[in-house]
Amino acid sequence: MFALVKAARERLRGQALVTPIMTSRTLDQIVGTRVYLKCENFQRTGAFKFRGAFNAISQLSDLQRKRGVLTYSSGNHAQAVALVGRLLDIQTTVVMPQDAPATKRAATEAYGAAVIEYDARATTREKIARDLASKHGYTLIPPYDHPAIVAGQGTAALELVEAVKPLGLLLVPCGGGGLLSGCAIASKGLDPHCQVVGIEPELADDATRSFRTRTLHTVNNPPTIADGTRTPSLGRVTFPLVLQHVADMQTVSEAAIMAAVRFLFYRMKLVVEPSGALGVAALLAGAVKPQGHVGVIISGGNIDGTTMTMILNAAPR
Amino acid sequence: MFALVKAARERLRGQALVTPIMTSRTLDQIVGTRVYLKCENFQRTGAFKFRGAFNAISQLSDLQRKRGVLTYSSGNHAQAVALVGRLLDIQTTVVMPQDAPATKRAATEAYGAAVIEYDARATTREKIARDLASKHGYTLIPPYDHPAIVAGQGTAALELVEAVKPLGLLLVPCGGGGLLSGCAIASKGLDPHCQVVGIEPELADDATRSFRTRTLHTVNNPPTIADGTRTPSLGRVTFPLVLQHVADMQTVSEAAIMAAVRFLFYRMKLVVEPSGALGVAALLAGAVKPQGHVGVIISGGNIDGTTMTMILNAAPR
Repeated sequence: MFALVKAARERLRGQALVTPIMTSRTLDQIVGTRVYLKCENFQRTGAFKFRGAFNAISQLSDLQRKRGVLTYSSGNHAQAVALVGRLLDIQTTVVMPQDAPATKRAATEAYGAAVIEYDARATTREKIARDLASKHGYTLIPPYDHPAIVAGQGTAALELVEAVKPLGLLLVPCGGGGLLSGCAIASKGLDPHCQVVGIEPELADDATRSFRTRTLHTVNNPPTIADGTRTPSLGRVTFPLVLQHVADMQTVSEAAIMAAVRFLFYRMKLVVEPSGALGVAALLAGAVKPQGHVGVIISGGNIDGTTMTMILNAAPR
Repeated sequence: MFALVKAARERLRGQALVTPIMTSRTLDQIVGTRVYLKCENFQRTGAFKFRGAFNAISQLSDLQRKRGVLTYSSGNHAQAVALVGRLLDIQTTVVMPQDAPATKRAATEAYGAAVIEYDARATTREKIARDLASKHGYTLIPPYDHPAIVAGQGTAALELVEAVKPLGLLLVPCGGGGLLSGCAIASKGLDPHCQVVGIEPELADDATRSFRTRTLHTVNNPPTIADGTRTPSLGRVTFPLVLQHVADMQTVSEAAIMAAVRFLFYRMKLVVEPSGALGVAALLAGAVKPQGHVGVIISGGNIDGTTMTMILNAAPR
């Protein structure tokens, strides 16, 4: 798999941004060691998802490209697929629940994708997507459970670890496990001593329980503010990779996630979405024990005004 | 004066951050050319003010250091002076109006300064400061009207122009004119063809009128959201420098400033205070005519939650 990550990096050259790595003296003092933030909130479309989407879609055959691609997502993956489609001149279709936020739908359409709504009470997005794919010949680009997606997301850690190694600890947000498993593969490939720890909201702790019990657990529609982690479980591809390459999983409270978003806003002047702040939340809340220098993947910055307002006013300063 | 800017850069080495330069394909497309943002919101204390304060205070004699320094400011300059005092082990006193926001006072005290309140209806901050300085032997570090402050602020443009020259246009926020005149000196020193344009809020257009008429105009307590530009006028040092080195001045509306803060938040994931967004506001509002590549000084990112909430909700997305 490490070879796939390195190959993905070559495909992404000149397409994905090599995002900045930010540091903060204040954060270093609080944590007691140097902390490097890999800022995927500055990535194209505002999240790491562009990496996996480009890596997967750019490998399609001419015939597949001609027929178009399809995905299901109401979040960052949808926008990433839509932009990659536009860049590679491939038609994209995105399946979204009827009640997806209008802003997310608009952003996806602005990148050029066709959005198809479905009733989440009547069917699942996976079923709708499979039906559409077989009917129209679309290639399905899943949000995380695919080796090319995993390899693409891993390039974020590849860039970080190459730039600042050695790291003792690397913290990665975990939703479906695509970013986490890819980053663990990349990090261990470059530096076997770096411990990779996945961070989840307490309210969406399926991956943590799956990791500890080595049995797949599911949490449907967890009410966490970290919307990027609302996937019900790890996938068939990502679960074994997480078991194999990840050192540990830890969870953080909703209050800790919001405190991290505020810290990144006020102290580092970074706009980070709740899912993107999980690693910093773990550090500030003491959920992980720092060892050596610490790397953190800031996974994205797509937060709407309502959510940011709520977080800033939850503890005014 | 250009030599003073270069000397300031040597003094600031290892103390001030060489802040990142950010770009955005979206912004480039809107403006029609490459735009480079010099991100002083990432500077220590969250604003460019650290540069001038360190440059001025680090040049004091041993006797002056022993007696301590004093300034008047309720904003970013106060925090900068307080931090520099702590770094150089010099006692700092900051004169603030009684009605200064509690958060600003707390931030200044957190850096170690003693805060002295005064009644803005009964006296002026300059008079209080002069009285205290003569009584205690403090050295006054004014917020902008001092050659060492001007030279320190100019290092922001020095770093930007060196990194990305040639620029056709450089946009700089203007309050008291310290940042503007310093950046104009630095920019013209490196590249005489770069036109430096100062940007002010329409509601605080004293410098624009002073520039056009070559006579000093004053606007007291302008009700602009861009609190960093609420200084009543250019200074005795900065006014002649602005006349000599600045190519033009332009103003932007409050709505344009807020739109720029939102653009920087949503599209670039940057937390920027209203004063810091003036250059981007001018570009988005068409207040300046881009020529060649464009540089913009993002002067700071110290915005409170209440103000950001108001701006994000002024035009929800």
